[in-house]
Amino acid sequence: MATVKTILVNEDVFSNNNKTAEETRLKLLNQGTYFMNIMSSPGSGKTTLLTKLIPMLSKRYKIGEMDCDIESDLDSKKVMEASGIETLQIHNGGLCHIDADMTKRAIKEYNTRGLDLLILENIGNLVCPAEFDTGAHLNMVILSIPEGDDKPIKYPLMFQVADIVVINKIDTLPIFDFDIDQCIQNIQKINKKAKVFLVSAKTKEGISELSKYLTLYKI
Amino acid sequence: MATVKTILVNEDVFSNNNKTAEETRLKLLNQGTYFMNIMSSPGSGKTTLLTKLIPMLSKRYKIGEMDCDIESDLDSKKVMEASGIETLQIHNGGLCHIDADMTKRAIKEYNTRGLDLLILENIGNLVCPAEFDTGAHLNMVILSIPEGDDKPIKYPLMFQVADIVVINKIDTLPIFDFDIDQCIQNIQKINKKAKVFLVSAKTKEGISELSKYLTLYKI
Repeated sequence: MATVKTILVNEDVFSNNNKTAEETRLKLLNQGTYFMNIMSSPGSGKTTLLTKLIPMLSKRYKIGEMDCDIESDLDSKKVMEASGIETLQIHNGGLCHIDADMTKRAIKEYNTRGLDLLILENIGNLVCPAEFDTGAHLNMVILSIPEGDDKPIKYPLMFQVADIVVINKIDTLPIFDFDIDQCIQNIQKINKKAKVFLVSAKTKEGISELSKYLTLYKI
Repeated sequence: MATVKTILVNEDVFSNNNKTAEETRLKLLNQGTYFMNIMSSPGSGKTTLLTKLIPMLSKRYKIGEMDCDIESDLDSKKVMEASGIETLQIHNGGLCHIDADMTKRAIKEYNTRGLDLLILENIGNLVCPAEFDTGAHLNMVILSIPEGDDKPIKYPLMFQVADIVVINKIDTLPIFDFDIDQCIQNIQKINKKAKVFLVSAKTKEGISELSKYLTLYKI
């Protein structure tokens, strides 16, 4: 069957972006702030996960959160109300991602000194955010059961850049045609190193394991 | 609370895109082919909806379908197997959308002469595809229950360009915190003209109403 192909030719954009991202990564490392970037489709549960995860991690760490949205400040309010930490809403003017330069400006605005962990909730988009290194030390990708187990095959770059893949909404497994083993195989075809967690942000199942992993190995 | 703002300044890109889109729209109108573009988040049910909708519409119309994906041809195969129509898989080389020029090339490849209805299944992305007019006569946006009723507020451009909004997976309403009335209000704040349908592509609830609407008013 015939196919139409187009290639992406904006290497300079990515080269500059990577340089800024490396600067951010080093700066935060030097000041002792671990930086985690969370990416997913719209509605896969980034915000709800954070409302459960941050209170657990807060017992041990001083945490900051920045929330990137096209418009509205619904998510940053939810995270702030649930966790009591200060959040920063980033509006990116309609863009499909946040790049290293925008992240750098947001970090400057936030004042991250003294933070052990800084979390960025990226735009809900399974394509573009994967292309732009934000300077994070760790990328967490969330895939929810209702989206289907084929998403790693269809959006490979996102799963390639993931250090952690969180399969969320596992409480809904009985009503969706989602094969966990097949999904993990699909992830591993693209990325053998990604650590996979099964959670339900709604019921809190699996959240403490995720919290422990972040505590023991990453921060 | 402080916010970081960035603006989109690529007006020339959109101006060229709109010109090509208008040419496509006129060409297809002149040959009697109605062109429908379907957009949504990843996993909201575009492909499953098409496997139920196309067989209904096929009784009356000659239909073609083009499926845009970053990689893989899972969706075009599913649609072809379920509906028996010829499908074209478009690979766009990792881009987050399909623009008017790529669509024009795909239409040339497909040979749309004699078709009453041409359907484009866009990349799963609630941001970028809304920015690029493909030349379609009608934009259908799918939002599924698990994604949440706040998505029209968070991704306003997508709902602004929609002629039809299909709220899918309504069979899962009992287990998700989704307020249908609130969602319709959120859509209407952005777009008073969009026609809203409640469906479950899985159980086929509401699909015949959608099919009838397309038959009576649009094609």
